[in-house]
Amino acid sequence: MTTSPLFKTVCFVGIGLIGSSLARAMRKHGLAERLLCLDVCEKARTTALALSVVDSATGNAAEAISEADLIVLGAPVGATQAVGEAIGPHLKPGAIVTDVGSVKLAVIRDLTPYLPEGVEFVPGHPIAGTEHSGPESGFAELFEGRWQILTPLPGCDQKAVDKVAELWRRVGSQVEIMDPHHHDKVLAITSHLPHLIAYTIVGTANDLEGHMQQEVIKFSASGFRDFTRIAASDPIMWRDVFLNNREAVLEVLQRFTEDLTALQRSIRWGEGEVLQKRFTETRAIRRAIIDAKQA
Amino acid sequence: MTTSPLFKTVCFVGIGLIGSSLARAMRKHGLAERLLCLDVCEKARTTALALSVVDSATGNAAEAISEADLIVLGAPVGATQAVGEAIGPHLKPGAIVTDVGSVKLAVIRDLTPYLPEGVEFVPGHPIAGTEHSGPESGFAELFEGRWQILTPLPGCDQKAVDKVAELWRRVGSQVEIMDPHHHDKVLAITSHLPHLIAYTIVGTANDLEGHMQQEVIKFSASGFRDFTRIAASDPIMWRDVFLNNREAVLEVLQRFTEDLTALQRSIRWGEGEVLQKRFTETRAIRRAIIDAKQA
Ligand SMILES: NC(=O)c1ccc[n+]([C@@H]2O[C@H](COP(=O)([O-])OP(=O)(O)OC[C@H]3O[C@@H](n4cnc5c(N)ncnc54)[C@H](OP(=O)(O)O)[C@@H]3O)[C@@H](O)[C@H]2O)c1
Ligand SMILES: NC(=O)c1ccc[n+]([C@@H]2O[C@H](COP(=O)([O-])OP(=O)(O)OC[C@H]3O[C@@H](n4cnc5c(N)ncnc54)[C@H](OP(=O)(O)O)[C@@H]3O)[C@@H](O)[C@H]2O)c1
Repeated sequence: MTTSPLFKTVCFVGIGLIGSSLARAMRKHGLAERLLCLDVCEKARTTALALSVVDSATGNAAEAISEADLIVLGAPVGATQAVGEAIGPHLKPGAIVTDVGSVKLAVIRDLTPYLPEGVEFVPGHPIAGTEHSGPESGFAELFEGRWQILTPLPGCDQKAVDKVAELWRRVGSQVEIMDPHHHDKVLAITSHLPHLIAYTIVGTANDLEGHMQQEVIKFSASGFRDFTRIAASDPIMWRDVFLNNREAVLEVLQRFTEDLTALQRSIRWGEGEVLQKRFTETRAIRRAIIDAKQA
Repeated sequence: MTTSPLFKTVCFVGIGLIGSSLARAMRKHGLAERLLCLDVCEKARTTALALSVVDSATGNAAEAISEADLIVLGAPVGATQAVGEAIGPHLKPGAIVTDVGSVKLAVIRDLTPYLPEGVEFVPGHPIAGTEHSGPESGFAELFEGRWQILTPLPGCDQKAVDKVAELWRRVGSQVEIMDPHHHDKVLAITSHLPHLIAYTIVGTANDLEGHMQQEVIKFSASGFRDFTRIAASDPIMWRDVFLNNREAVLEVLQRFTEDLTALQRSIRWGEGEVLQKRFTETRAIRRAIIDAKQA
């Protein structure tokens, strides 16, 4: 792996789990000369500096952005407009902006109006993460062996796309180019619906009376526990995901509810064959995931 | 840990994942003099013998049961009546019968009529397992640090309960005594509903057209993947669980559906505060599970 820096100065706007992981990985692989961050959260800035995740941290957009060759947006997607407003006036010509948001159409809609001529935007989404947040939770290996989806818009400079793709390859990811609309539909199924379901079932358990709740915790190893990890993910990040991928989430939720209602009916009427058939079909997907080395 | 055998002859009826794991653990800890199995599946019998999980394997109930001091039922719960019919006439006076079924009321209902006077039944359920099945998937450590629930009926001989409890303690479990009705309600939440939800969401993905399905597999690491492991569990075992814990499952499913509908409505109407509040509450349960060392 070559160590020639890909970028001179990089600024992370939002230095949380994902931003700090990419910063660590860029440092590890020597992909930038200088790493800066712009974050509204003083604690995040202090932590990122103390851990040497970045060389310099500030809450002042002019200072952070005006020299950056690459700007990586790593704030919750609901902050995109505020971020655009803050950084837009300070972006230098020739700079590349990318992001790591879990939804793509809304980020493109909210950021594009603030980008000056001569600045290229390459939207992206790493299919990697944990249920933790903040710069203290990041690690350089987070993206190794994972997918990085890029959703460039028509008319975007191919050189900018290639450079961002190269960055992700150097930190260990495989890059996939996708249409942003399609991204939001696929992720509604693979990520947003599973999180919504997990939040719901853990919420249902949380509403139980005290004694029952204690037992749910005690005997959680029988299936429930796996959902609680997912449902421990950041509430603000996920609020923003659902508010900003509403249509795709509601559509796939509708399908899910129909399927659940059908199984419920089969249980009520004792349709053993239907249940067994349905429970057998699902094994194929598990096998395919294992074969695709994503298990 | 003492090595004096607790039982002379033990017979496993159904030598699958759970039965074979307990047989291995009993062998490892020297808890029985002789281990037998009675299984309708020839392949399971051959495998269990070849792996020395048991000393002898048969499909003949008279042969297997008549000398056993402890009989452990490890077939799917839907087979309980057939098992009772087969073993009932051959149980010797003073023998103890226990089981590992995931539901308790139905097993008690289906087995009790076949048990002769002088035979004690101690229903049980280990809160331990994997998504695999068959005797080749078992391992002696499966129960270490896990809960074993026992649901003895009023009038059961306390010595029999104590002996079964001691068995589970010796293989590394903590024993909890519970009312069978309560067991079925608690497990409907911690285990049966999570499995039903996982089967549903993976089924929903399985119904997608080919291209979309490929992408779901490719990008499954974003949440979906965790559900596919649960939904790869044995179809027959789970069909039987749902058919035999119908009321409790339907009741908790009703609560879940109400909660999901409420979240769906909040997404549709953009109620960010409701979503954030709900997603914050669920973190407490995760922390409690980590504190209870069940994570
Ligand atoms: N976590 C995952 O597993 C994962 C995976 C893939 C993609 N993503 C995406 O990655 C992004 C970041 O997620 P994360 O988990 O890294 O979040 P995080 O750990 O919560 O960090 C986000 C940081 O951005 C800051 N911030 C908020 N508004 C800002 C603004 N207007 N300007 C500058 N900084 C701002 C936050 O400060 P405050 O705390 O004060 O708000 C926080 O320090 C999200 O868009 C998410 O959708 C996450
Ligand atoms: N798997 C888990 O994670 C887990 C956890 C806790 C409790 N349990 C409970 O443990 C029990 C066994 O589960 P498992 O996963 O060990 O199952 P498994 O691996 O599928 O093994 C069950 C064995 O029982 C045999 N069998 C079926 N009907 C029988 C009959 N009438 N007489 C004798 N043997 C018969 C099966 O043969 P065929 O294959 O030919 O039917 C199979 O060999 C179930 O009641 C389940 O609810 C399972």
